[in-house]
Amino acid sequence: MQFLEELRFLKEQLKVNEAIDLPRKFDNIVVAGMGGSGISGKIFQELYSEKPVFLVEDYEIPNFVSKNTLFIGISYSGSTQEVLTATKSAVKKEASTVTISAGGELADHGDQHINIPRKDLQPRSATGYMLTPFLRGFKICSESEIKEAYKLLSDLDGDHKECSKHAKAIADAQAIPVIYGVRPFKSVAYRWKTQFNENSKIIAYSGSFPELNHNDTMAIAKTYRKKGFYYFTFSPQDKRILRRIQVTEKITNSKFAIIDPKGSGPVAQTLYLIHYGDYVSYEVGMLRGVDPTDVSLIQKLKSEISK
Amino acid sequence: MQFLEELRFLKEQLKVNEAIDLPRKFDNIVVAGMGGSGISGKIFQELYSEKPVFLVEDYEIPNFVSKNTLFIGISYSGSTQEVLTATKSAVKKEASTVTISAGGELADHGDQHINIPRKDLQPRSATGYMLTPFLRGFKICSESEIKEAYKLLSDLDGDHKECSKHAKAIADAQAIPVIYGVRPFKSVAYRWKTQFNENSKIIAYSGSFPELNHNDTMAIAKTYRKKGFYYFTFSPQDKRILRRIQVTEKITNSKFAIIDPKGSGPVAQTLYLIHYGDYVSYEVGMLRGVDPTDVSLIQKLKSEISK
Repeated sequence: MQFLEELRFLKEQLKVNEAIDLPRKFDNIVVAGMGGSGISGKIFQELYSEKPVFLVEDYEIPNFVSKNTLFIGISYSGSTQEVLTATKSAVKKEASTVTISAGGELADHGDQHINIPRKDLQPRSATGYMLTPFLRGFKICSESEIKEAYKLLSDLDGDHKECSKHAKAIADAQAIPVIYGVRPFKSVAYRWKTQFNENSKIIAYSGSFPELNHNDTMAIAKTYRKKGFYYFTFSPQDKRILRRIQVTEKITNSKFAIIDPKGSGPVAQTLYLIHYGDYVSYEVGMLRGVDPTDVSLIQKLKSEISK
Repeated sequence: MQFLEELRFLKEQLKVNEAIDLPRKFDNIVVAGMGGSGISGKIFQELYSEKPVFLVEDYEIPNFVSKNTLFIGISYSGSTQEVLTATKSAVKKEASTVTISAGGELADHGDQHINIPRKDLQPRSATGYMLTPFLRGFKICSESEIKEAYKLLSDLDGDHKECSKHAKAIADAQAIPVIYGVRPFKSVAYRWKTQFNENSKIIAYSGSFPELNHNDTMAIAKTYRKKGFYYFTFSPQDKRILRRIQVTEKITNSKFAIIDPKGSGPVAQTLYLIHYGDYVSYEVGMLRGVDPTDVSLIQKLKSEISK
C-alpha cells in the first residue's frame, strides 16, 4: 500500500466496532505502548480522567499494578519487546489485561484480545484501529462525533493545501518543527513530533502550554539559530491559554502557526489535528526527497538488539 | 545571591527535615507544579510507584480527584496561577491537600503546608527544598543516601571540569542539546532541557530510551542540520537499554555523550545528574555571554497575563 493511501485509510479504521471490556471494578488503568502504537494510550490519558491513567513506555511496570488494575498492552506488530515484557508482568500480578495487536505473540496474552484486521500498515498509520477500542469501551464520545470525525478526515484528504503551505515553509528553511500542545491536544503535539521524525526524517520536538511559559520562553526569545525553528500550536478553548499564546508571541518576538481544530468535540478535533499533522509531515518528507514509508533503521535496530 | 552560589546551595537544602504527612488511606496521588517547581513532582513520579502518581501542569485537575486522593501543590513563589487554581479545586473535592511554597497565597491552602525557609532563590535553584519533603514523607531512600548525595554534590561543586568540556563543545558548535533519559532518570533529562532553556537561553529538547527507538531514531540518522545537535544520555543499569544506546549510536552514525550517574542508589544518582546538568547549562550561558539568572521575560509574561 502506498503511504498516501495508508494516511487516507485512517478514517476507515474508525468503523471497527471492537471495544475494550471494562471490568466490574478497577481502581486505575495502566497502558503500555511504544511509538506509533503508544500514541493511542497518550490520547486516551488526555481524554479520560475518571480514573488515574498511567502510561508505560518501558519494560517495567509500576509496583501498584494489582488485580484492581485494568492493564492495556498495545503493539501493532504484537512483538514489541517492551510491551510484551510489561504485559507478561501485568498478567503475573493478576491485573485485568487487554491486548491490542495485529497478531503476534501479544495476541496470546491477557483476558481480552482485540485483533487488528490488517497486518500490512505502518504502526503509525493504524491509530484508528488502536484508538477506537478506547473511545467505544470507555464511552468517551458519541457515535455521531465519530461520524463527524470521518467527515473531517475525508475533507482533509480532499483539501490539505494549508498543510502543504506549512510543509513548504519548513522544508525551505530547513527548520526544526516545535509543536506546543494545549489541553486537550497535548498528546497531538507529541504525535506531530513523531510523525516529523518518521515521515520527514527530521528532528522535531514537542511541549505544551502553559508549561513552556516556565522555561522554553526564555529560549524562544534568545536562542542561537533563532531562525532555525518553526513553531506550531493549536487554538485553545481556554481564554487564559489563548492569552498566553498571544503574550508569548509578543515577548519572544516569534510567530506561531496556530492550527484551528475543526470539529464539535474533543475526539473529532483530536483526529482532525492528528490528520493535519500527518499531511504536513508527509509533505515535508516529499519536499526533502526522502521516502516517508522508510523506517529501515528502526527495523535494523530491532533485529540488532534481539541478537 | 550570585547564581553560582545558588547552584552550590542545592546540597544544603537536603538538610531540611520537613516531610509530607501521608493520610492513613489514599488511592492515588496528584502533584500539581509548573517548571522549576514541577520538576520535583516528576522526579517523585519516577522514584515512587506504590500508588499511581498523576502530574498536573495546567489549571484543571482530573475528575478522579476525591477524598481518596493525596493532592500536592508546589509553587516556589506560592503565586503560580495554574497551581493555585488546581489546588483550590482539589480542596473543594476534599482531597487531602499538601502545599509546598516559600509563602505566597498557596501557603493559605490545604491541610498541611510545608514552608520553604528562603524566598530569595530562583525556583529552579530550590529543587532540594521541594524534593526532600517527598523523599522523607514517602521514605524513598535512607538518610545515608541523602548524606551520600550531599557529598556527591559537594565534590561536583569542587570539580566539574567534565561539565565545562561538554559546555564548550555545545557553545562552540552552537548546538541544540538533546537529552535522552533512561529509567529512573527520565525526569532528569527533562530537567536538563529546562536548565538549558533558562540558564543558557537556548532551545533544547528531551526524550527517553527506549521510546526514541520508535521514532527519533530515523531523524537522528537523516535529519537536515545534522551537525546542529549534541546528544546526551545517562548510563543505564538495564543491559537491554545499554545495548539500545550502543546500537542507536551505530546505526545513526552519531555520538552520544553518556554521563555516568555516580552514587549508590537512585536518589543520590538523580541528584548527582541534576547537578551535573546545572553546571553544563550554566557554563553554556557564561560562554554565550548571557546572564544565567535572567528570567525577565518569564516575569514579564506573568505580569502581562495577569492584567
